Amino acid sequence: MSAQQRIYRFGTDDHGRDVTEGSSSMNYILGGKGANLAEMARIGLPVPPGFTITCQTCVEYSTAGNTWPEGALDEIAEAEADLERRMGKRLGDPADPLLVSVRSGAPFSMPGMMDTVLNLGLNDASVQGLIAQTENPRFAWDSYRRFIQMFSDVVLGVDAELFENAITQKKLIAGVRSDAELSAEDLEELVAEFKQIFSEHVDATDHPELLVDGEIVFPADPALQLRLAIQAVFGSWMNERAILYRKQNGIPDDLGTAVNVQVMVFGNKGATSATGVAFTRNPANGAREFYGDFLVNAQGEDVVAGIRNTEPISDLKTVEGLEKAGAELERVFTVLENHYRDMCDIEFTIEQGRLWMLQTRVGKRTATAALKIAIDMVDEGLITREEAVGRVDPAQLDQLLHPQFDASVELDILARGLNASPGAAVGEIVFSSDDAVARAAEGHPVVLVRWETNPDDLKGMVAAEGILTSHGGKTSHAAVIARGMGTPCVCGVEAFQIDAAKKEVRVSGTEIVLHEGDIISIDGATGIVVAGAVPLVSAELTGDLETILAWADEIRLSEDGGRPCHVRVNADNPADAKLALDFGAEAIGLCRTEHMFLGDRKNIIQTYILSDDDAERAEALQELLRVQTEDFVQMLKTMSGRPMVIRLIDPPLHEFLDDPRALEISIAKRESDGADEAELAALRDRLRRIDAMSESNPMLGLRGVRLSVVYPDLPLMQVRAITTATAQLIKDGYDPRPEIMVPLVAITEEHVQTREVIEQVIAEVERDRGVKLDIPVGTMLELPRACLVADDIARHADFFCFGTNDLTQTAFGFSRDDAEAKFIPIYLHRKILKGNPFETIDDAVLELVRMAVEKGRDANPTMHFGVCGEHGGDPKSIVKFFNVAGVDYVSCSPYRVPVARLAAAQAKLKRA
Amino acid sequence: MSAQQRIYRFGTDDHGRDVTEGSSSMNYILGGKGANLAEMARIGLPVPPGFTITCQTCVEYSTAGNTWPEGALDEIAEAEADLERRMGKRLGDPADPLLVSVRSGAPFSMPGMMDTVLNLGLNDASVQGLIAQTENPRFAWDSYRRFIQMFSDVVLGVDAELFENAITQKKLIAGVRSDAELSAEDLEELVAEFKQIFSEHVDATDHPELLVDGEIVFPADPALQLRLAIQAVFGSWMNERAILYRKQNGIPDDLGTAVNVQVMVFGNKGATSATGVAFTRNPANGAREFYGDFLVNAQGEDVVAGIRNTEPISDLKTVEGLEKAGAELERVFTVLENHYRDMCDIEFTIEQGRLWMLQTRVGKRTATAALKIAIDMVDEGLITREEAVGRVDPAQLDQLLHPQFDASVELDILARGLNASPGAAVGEIVFSSDDAVARAAEGHPVVLVRWETNPDDLKGMVAAEGILTSHGGKTSHAAVIARGMGTPCVCGVEAFQIDAAKKEVRVSGTEIVLHEGDIISIDGATGIVVAGAVPLVSAELTGDLETILAWADEIRLSEDGGRPCHVRVNADNPADAKLALDFGAEAIGLCRTEHMFLGDRKNIIQTYILSDDDAERAEALQELLRVQTEDFVQMLKTMSGRPMVIRLIDPPLHEFLDDPRALEISIAKRESDGADEAELAALRDRLRRIDAMSESNPMLGLRGVRLSVVYPDLPLMQVRAITTATAQLIKDGYDPRPEIMVPLVAITEEHVQTREVIEQVIAEVERDRGVKLDIPVGTMLELPRACLVADDIARHADFFCFGTNDLTQTAFGFSRDDAEAKFIPIYLHRKILKGNPFETIDDAVLELVRMAVEKGRDANPTMHFGVCGEHGGDPKSIVKFFNVAGVDYVSCSPYRVPVARLAAAQAKLKRA
Repeated sequence: MSAQQRIYRFGTDDHGRDVTEGSSSMNYILGGKGANLAEMARIGLPVPPGFTITCQTCVEYSTAGNTWPEGALDEIAEAEADLERRMGKRLGDPADPLLVSVRSGAPFSMPGMMDTVLNLGLNDASVQGLIAQTENPRFAWDSYRRFIQMFSDVVLGVDAELFENAITQKKLIAGVRSDAELSAEDLEELVAEFKQIFSEHVDATDHPELLVDGEIVFPADPALQLRLAIQAVFGSWMNERAILYRKQNGIPDDLGTAVNVQVMVFGNKGATSATGVAFTRNPANGAREFYGDFLVNAQGEDVVAGIRNTEPISDLKTVEGLEKAGAELERVFTVLENHYRDMCDIEFTIEQGRLWMLQTRVGKRTATAALKIAIDMVDEGLITREEAVGRVDPAQLDQLLHPQFDASVELDILARGLNASPGAAVGEIVFSSDDAVARAAEGHPVVLVRWETNPDDLKGMVAAEGILTSHGGKTSHAAVIARGMGTPCVCGVEAFQIDAAKKEVRVSGTEIVLHEGDIISIDGATGIVVAGAVPLVSAELTGDLETILAWADEIRLSEDGGRPCHVRVNADNPADAKLALDFGAEAIGLCRTEHMFLGDRKNIIQTYILSDDDAERAEALQELLRVQTEDFVQMLKTMSGRPMVIRLIDPPLHEFLDDPRALEISIAKRESDGADEAELAALRDRLRRIDAMSESNPMLGLRGVRLSVVYPDLPLMQVRAITTATAQLIKDGYDPRPEIMVPLVAITEEHVQTREVIEQVIAEVERDRGVKLDIPVGTMLELPRACLVADDIARHADFFCFGTNDLTQTAFGFSRDDAEAKFIPIYLHRKILKGNPFETIDDAVLELVRMAVEKGRDANPTMHFGVCGEHGGDPKSIVKFFNVAGVDYVSCSPYRVPVARLAAAQAKLKRA
Repeated sequence: MSAQQRIYRFGTDDHGRDVTEGSSSMNYILGGKGANLAEMARIGLPVPPGFTITCQTCVEYSTAGNTWPEGALDEIAEAEADLERRMGKRLGDPADPLLVSVRSGAPFSMPGMMDTVLNLGLNDASVQGLIAQTENPRFAWDSYRRFIQMFSDVVLGVDAELFENAITQKKLIAGVRSDAELSAEDLEELVAEFKQIFSEHVDATDHPELLVDGEIVFPADPALQLRLAIQAVFGSWMNERAILYRKQNGIPDDLGTAVNVQVMVFGNKGATSATGVAFTRNPANGAREFYGDFLVNAQGEDVVAGIRNTEPISDLKTVEGLEKAGAELERVFTVLENHYRDMCDIEFTIEQGRLWMLQTRVGKRTATAALKIAIDMVDEGLITREEAVGRVDPAQLDQLLHPQFDASVELDILARGLNASPGAAVGEIVFSSDDAVARAAEGHPVVLVRWETNPDDLKGMVAAEGILTSHGGKTSHAAVIARGMGTPCVCGVEAFQIDAAKKEVRVSGTEIVLHEGDIISIDGATGIVVAGAVPLVSAELTGDLETILAWADEIRLSEDGGRPCHVRVNADNPADAKLALDFGAEAIGLCRTEHMFLGDRKNIIQTYILSDDDAERAEALQELLRVQTEDFVQMLKTMSGRPMVIRLIDPPLHEFLDDPRALEISIAKRESDGADEAELAALRDRLRRIDAMSESNPMLGLRGVRLSVVYPDLPLMQVRAITTATAQLIKDGYDPRPEIMVPLVAITEEHVQTREVIEQVIAEVERDRGVKLDIPVGTMLELPRACLVADDIARHADFFCFGTNDLTQTAFGFSRDDAEAKFIPIYLHRKILKGNPFETIDDAVLELVRMAVEKGRDANPTMHFGVCGEHGGDPKSIVKFFNVAGVDYVSCSPYRVPVARLAAAQAKLKRA
């Protein structure tokens, strides 16, 4: 059907000439493994010859209901014959047989699929040829029994345990303890027994092709062996585990997997044979040293299985008989690094002194290693600074920005959960928010341990060093809030059976019971929980991180390649502002003022909201003006010389009031306690006033700019405080640069009328204080309608900042609190959503932002545009904001600033 | 400055030739009055000559801070001189003076502005000329004193009472009872006294031009009189009342008003003079008869003031000396109707047997009259059916679709409020929702009287014939709900001092106290409240209304002029469906299924939601299936042969549960009453389950399609019920045409996965029942994101129906309940919003609809598109939906169906 090439050869022909047809760029055709085998062969590295059947062939096979596309089997037969010609050997040859491995290799590394069949081509005849070749009957019979065992298990699904039992029995009979002590004869007997097991456990109705005289027989025909093995690889693409894995990792089902058929090489042919895995540099810390392990006289699976102790790769060239291969391997390391211009991860085998490369790929590494390798490679002239900046994964950086477990300490892991908010924490277990606050106030670091958290736990979460929940996923309340606060959090620790009433935790699968006050350590980057105190290493913006970020800043702030990509911070207090400056924030992109009304000040604002005594209200307002002015003096002083966007009060006022339900219940209780009528009347009056403020959907109620229209006193007090603080600081020689932002605008006139009164207040303070002030006034765009009329609003605004949290809420019609608790986890599981739109910006919501930036810029070319939602700290979103929507800056929480600097630089690089 | 023509002449010149420069189309230049005077002159009707100063001159004058634009005064002086030439008389001429009137005339009829100055040009010299002309000193002095009085009052703001007092005193001195009995001498004395009052009450600093030797003197110079009068008209454009009126009626401030200067004619020159107002047909019932009043020997203001009893216009030509003028007037009526092709409203004066036309315009009429006139004019061949359909105001129709006060009964009005929901109602006063329900259940019609209503009052509102509130505006809860239900409602009856505890109402400004059980009548179309029972006339779709709607249907359903405009109904029960068919609905555009779970069924759904016994839940579901199947059988039978769009369950499930706060309080009470522990435990368990369902922002929570994902049982039960009912009806020979609608879709995959399971159920029922079913499945588009990805969703949907209520809520970020209670009234008052976006579709929200229709139609050309939000019954919105957004149908509540039919036809006409 398809005219596409289905088979690509790699390695040399019978004249030693390279006949490789593929290359490393053909990932989607040859799979990762096949593409890199081809690449290595192409650059002259020693790769055992073979061929790759393409991923597209797999897709054709799968979609046709596991039926071979026309001509494909012929092509495979041809490739097989070709490989035989190239090697001068034939599969199944009783004199000098060719053996091959069959391995799957998808475009993305993927567990759950059929992996490997080795030694294919052996049968009762060719095993004799192998004996003749190697003069090693034990090796030959061992290879044969391994082949039958693997083939039966992975190709035909015969229970692996049946074979292990047979081996165990054989060792008992032979009176030996290890497999290695079994003789050639023992192994020959095992081959016969394995074939018997095969005959008894393969279902004839599924495999009529294996019937010989009505009996299932292990296939002797190498062509049949090969076809069944390839079919098994293809079939495993659609097995349950593989489908689930792809769903969870967002890998499309229509990629398919390739199959690599490759001549066998043996690391278990005696003392001059070996096998190993290695990295070209240290993947843990990035040091420029060869890193890995090898085993003499072993097959690859022995290294991974950890049956024998491996030796460090640096010792390879000191082993007798392996000196040459060891030196060759070091040369290969250099060739690979120079070719791939990155640290590589490889698998190799040495067969009787000769090195063969079986796999390579760009190696995974820790954040620390990623930084060091990138910088070293720049120093070595291997890559440019731009490439170095482009190579570090911003999401990974997060690990480095929080305290971490000391890597030199061995961990005794108690339980594992989800890595919900990075950083490590050590503290006493507490089971309630109140206990967290109380114990922390006494100076004890605590870890709050809860079934799950809810908004009432907020103060406990603030007080805690870390948070652990036994339920809830990465989008649970605990996870979201913890990430926002930069507090380490491990969620969904299912092993923790919490009894908050008894203040204890039973750990499933153990006898361990933890009590309040016991010390635990959690690592939010890995989800690991440890009993007792693990020593921590704290985060600093130094060394390699500092270097990479400095390079990132050069790139993102350059005028080349279009608009620079600025990074601001969301900070509401001087401590956060200071931290953010250390972390490289250029300005404050969002200063939320409502947090400034909590604590001692809650009483004042309650009086302001609830009192009907005008004098009392005026006094409260005056007091708020006094404290807010001081707030802004502190903040603006810290940020002297840098812009600071201050959002006027945004949340519904009832958020500052008592919960009416709790109040009504306490009234009912006081009533039955026989409290006096005056007290009850006062309480009831308070309840009535609080109820009058309540709303059905507070998210969409009287908040944001609507407060400025309905209760203008409060925001205007804030404007007066900002303006007064600014005037005072100018007189004191500072350079305060406040920008006032009007939240939740939907209608142009909301902004226009609010701006009018803001400017009146500014003018008054200018007059009173005798200073000239230049305070831009902008709009927070966080509603779909505002984006639709952005051109109109832009004519009256100095800047737009997108509140993408609320914009996501209203575009989707999702209340984040409710959605993340009730259905987003299910949506993610069911793949209705590919990702949580509150973590990475949704493309439709992004389109609203893009449209608004375009309209705004057209209408008012002097404006600037920013994003200050939580998405401003998400690397994937950052790239889209800069490169799709065209904003000037993102603003994020202090701990995300370095991440954003790197992501912003990468956005700039991607544009080029 | 402006090169535009500032002055337009009308009427004849000194040779009797018409020199009119304007026409009726020049409304925005000459104002309504000036344009129609010009038009009448142009078609040869007798109009006293004059000239009009343009609206643009007024705007120039106003924007320059009440300063004359360069050259304008010269132009006015020229026009005045020209008029003198045309009339062969001069203003202020002591021998044969010209007198003029000065009248304002804006493009829209507008109270609050300076209206009229008559007899301008009189002074101590010219009054003698008038005496000589008329040989009637009494008439001349009376004219002079009227001029001074009007000029002082309207031009200079001297308190009118001062002049009335002087007249009263004069009558006392003269010993007479009426003004008419005052002699020429009395009136001459009054002129002197009036001038004295003028001198004493005009402020010299404001009017230095009136100073003569340091004293304020009534201006004798006619040019000065004229300038001051024109300035007063111009100035009054920006007075407070006029500005407020324009704000309230959405009239832009930059239109300005014109000024008409016109030669005086006198209806008070004896028995062959007269004045009157008339309509060319009866404006109350539309009958083809001359309609109006006249007074012999009177000025226009006497007719309006009602001092003397007027005579019917039909008698005019029987009055001696007026026969000719009377016949001429009837000819003019015909000329005007033929010319304007509509019923006209006119003012005329007959001066000594000669008819003069002073004003005409298209006349206002009742809904009944509008229908009759339109139909008659078609019969008369004056207008086409299309014109007739285009002429009836759909909003006015509403009056006819509800019971009304019998027009033949004189009303004794007790109080007035806002006309919040049309229709009249009579019933016993009740003060609480519970009383309404109880009393109505006993068979007594009731009117629910409340300070204002809230959602808890819903059942009382349903039970009541009518609703009256003392607070709240046209967008209050009571108003919105009442309109939705078609229940008459009068809001904001401020005179009602309600004491719900005492169950009484004091009516301000009276001694009246109403008690529970007293009968009142309310008219929601006029806001009138009457004590006792007013007889009602009920609504029917008969006669003229039926005729016009039949014509409207022809137009809107025609394939000419693009896509037909269909009208469907929102109906949830067979009674509404039946009513809607009578009212001409073509199909059901929205059947909300959640209402079907109230009443007896609430217990079943509560069990389903709260129980954790699977068997119990399954049983509840089975019971729901049974009753829902019966619901759909009834509905589909009623709608046999017509489509019926059924929306799957939409609201959050906790809406079906008890209020947790009330429950917690009752638990607290039971606790203190010493209830036993088992009862308390059960209650606490119930509370816990209800709390687990609660949400912060239910509007944006677990509802709509999200229920289908998280709790699929409930919507699938509904699909099974729909499908089973359909299968059964088909077997019974009916033609059921259900269409299933998935609500609140934001993400394509929500729709896709839901549709998959819906179709599985349909297939199952097809198999079980052995019938073939064709049930379209569509999407309710009510979230901004859905509109943005409409092309994608369209590939999987058979139709889109726009829920513009929720779309407005999410686009604006307004929770309707909260917004209409807390800030929309303020927004309307402050003109932040020009209208309530929940009443008439907002243009930005409309753009989302338009975009989604465009994307949807491109992606899936076979789809159809509808609107089923409350906007579907609003005439202004309907035109936009059809002509801007391009939908195929609107769906609205039963009582709005005729309104929608007419509006849809007008939309179709506007396209042409």
